[in-house]
Amino acid sequence: MSQIRFELHANDGAARTGVLKTPRGDIRTPAFMPVGTAATVKALYPEQVRSAGADIILGNTYHLMLRPGADRIHRLGGLHEFMRWDGPILTDSGGFQVWSLAGLRKLTEEGVDFQSHIDGSKYHLSPERAIEIQADLLGADISMQLDECTNFPCTEEDARSSMELSLRWGARCKAAFGARETQALFGIVQGSVFDDLRKESAARTIETGFDGYAIGGLAVGEGLETMCHVLDITVPALPANKPHYLMGVGKPIDLVEAVSRGIDMFDCVMPTRSGRHGQAWSDYGPVNLKRAEFAEDNSPLDPDIDCPASRDYSKAYLHHLVRAGEYLAAMLLSWHNVAYYEHLMARMRAAIREGRFDAFASEFRARWAQGMSAKD
Amino acid sequence: MSQIRFELHANDGAARTGVLKTPRGDIRTPAFMPVGTAATVKALYPEQVRSAGADIILGNTYHLMLRPGADRIHRLGGLHEFMRWDGPILTDSGGFQVWSLAGLRKLTEEGVDFQSHIDGSKYHLSPERAIEIQADLLGADISMQLDECTNFPCTEEDARSSMELSLRWGARCKAAFGARETQALFGIVQGSVFDDLRKESAARTIETGFDGYAIGGLAVGEGLETMCHVLDITVPALPANKPHYLMGVGKPIDLVEAVSRGIDMFDCVMPTRSGRHGQAWSDYGPVNLKRAEFAEDNSPLDPDIDCPASRDYSKAYLHHLVRAGEYLAAMLLSWHNVAYYEHLMARMRAAIREGRFDAFASEFRARWAQGMSAKD
Repeated sequence: MSQIRFELHANDGAARTGVLKTPRGDIRTPAFMPVGTAATVKALYPEQVRSAGADIILGNTYHLMLRPGADRIHRLGGLHEFMRWDGPILTDSGGFQVWSLAGLRKLTEEGVDFQSHIDGSKYHLSPERAIEIQADLLGADISMQLDECTNFPCTEEDARSSMELSLRWGARCKAAFGARETQALFGIVQGSVFDDLRKESAARTIETGFDGYAIGGLAVGEGLETMCHVLDITVPALPANKPHYLMGVGKPIDLVEAVSRGIDMFDCVMPTRSGRHGQAWSDYGPVNLKRAEFAEDNSPLDPDIDCPASRDYSKAYLHHLVRAGEYLAAMLLSWHNVAYYEHLMARMRAAIREGRFDAFASEFRARWAQGMSAKD
Repeated sequence: MSQIRFELHANDGAARTGVLKTPRGDIRTPAFMPVGTAATVKALYPEQVRSAGADIILGNTYHLMLRPGADRIHRLGGLHEFMRWDGPILTDSGGFQVWSLAGLRKLTEEGVDFQSHIDGSKYHLSPERAIEIQADLLGADISMQLDECTNFPCTEEDARSSMELSLRWGARCKAAFGARETQALFGIVQGSVFDDLRKESAARTIETGFDGYAIGGLAVGEGLETMCHVLDITVPALPANKPHYLMGVGKPIDLVEAVSRGIDMFDCVMPTRSGRHGQAWSDYGPVNLKRAEFAEDNSPLDPDIDCPASRDYSKAYLHHLVRAGEYLAAMLLSWHNVAYYEHLMARMRAAIREGRFDAFASEFRARWAQGMSAKD
């Protein structure tokens, strides 16, 4: 019997909070997973990721199979040991990154052949190999089925045939994964922006049967309104007693809107990527520390967040570090951003638990809109 | 009366150990000062610099006066507050960096005019301005006199006229500095590789009278043997009861040789610069983590050093991070290197205290030679 269990503690409208229990620790939901692409959450020590409030991180199968190689990581004791992260890890299947390779890949029913963006060497990914890499070699606590990320925009016909392939690959992943006590497998719902396809994809993915359900093919340029519509259609079609994971999303406002529609898990490179580009996230949107207005601003980024990067360093100092191109700029801003994202999740969990999520979301939307209009 | 006092606790041959007491904390000598060029020891948090064993860091007047500006740092509460380092700070006078500018500077008796390497804007540095920036605006615990770094190699005639200018500038710095209770001023001995000039420079710098004496104009390509010869000539000419500071040095072997000749303080960018280039320092020299031999080496860099970067991460992981060009590579290797340097100083202090420095130095030289020959 699986040791990975999802417990729901409170609902507030469609929003919900709970905990996904794993042998490597509890994941409080709604949860945000910082992305550790190449076996490191960029510019952060693992201890900082943990103390910022992250219960789980994401690893990228595509990047890890290319460098340092999945077999090598396995020989070195698995991904947790390799990168010194002892909490749960979810790995993506590599499908999304391979899809991004455009001209460098060749897709068949069996799987996908592609060339490394690093050295051009050839690789093969199939549903069976994706499971072997994630669950057996890397040792992921949560593996994702291999899917084909549907192009956006695309015709309904193309969206259907792509969805059908993902469904067949999902079933093959399920068969390859088998029954495991300490590891889970999530399926992925596709269907682009077509209501009927999303519903059908959800129903047939559920038929295959997974430990959790992800919504893929979003955050590809469709915009917040369309994303919310897809969630309105798709989330109610998913089992309430399983985790709902919105892949690759997003900005803080996206997280609030998605949580209000019943999403439990997120991952996104945004906090760390922005941190390397001089930006600090806030309820009012991104703050560009390079701006001259911060040159003599001795206030911290956010004294309410229990993170040294948010609380102890002045904006004037961060401004200087960004201008000087110092490593510490990326280090502090990435740390603050991950802490801000995790703090936002904690605020949402508390609001749901206390039955005031609607008020929280309204207030957040107002702040966000205020920040956006100030930037106009 | 000055609150900065130098106490010698033990001698072992010419080597000595003690403590330089300052209102911001004790500096255990021999001491290595990590370099915080632009108000940050590159890729390290201030807490890591401290926990690695550093009692004091160095700040660069040249870089700070250009960006973010000495007056701005003063308005923001001084350098300690700005960069969140509450221990002692020694600042160089800017003379060395301005000297490196070659065609972009114009030197007169009064001082030096130069152009910023960042934006070409014009600056002036004089003995009086160097003291104002260091002691008054940045708030350095130890300021350095403005000197002219003598070209290497150069004729004895040029070395003399350069030395004379540094002596006159030293006297002007002393006058501008005046008597201060909580801050110290160090003089700088020049004279290139000419024994008589070094002796004369030492005698006349002592005549002016400083709280400590630095040896400048070395680590400019003269080689270890020549450097040792200059130390053999110069250090005995300095007051035994004042700190002796060898500027800009060096590799671990240089530190051991200099301590054996009575040097008490060092600064160098080497540990952090090497860290950003994939190198880890050891008793056997630098280790290039990029080398294929480390790809599956699960051992740590040095389990004897009480620093997570040295003790807790595998060489295989560091190898991967270096190859992938990850921030964490520079972060971990810089941290290890500073910890290695500070650990080396601690080992030397203990050896002197216990009267076994000669044995320590012999053993170290043997290891170093072994490492160098293995690289041949």
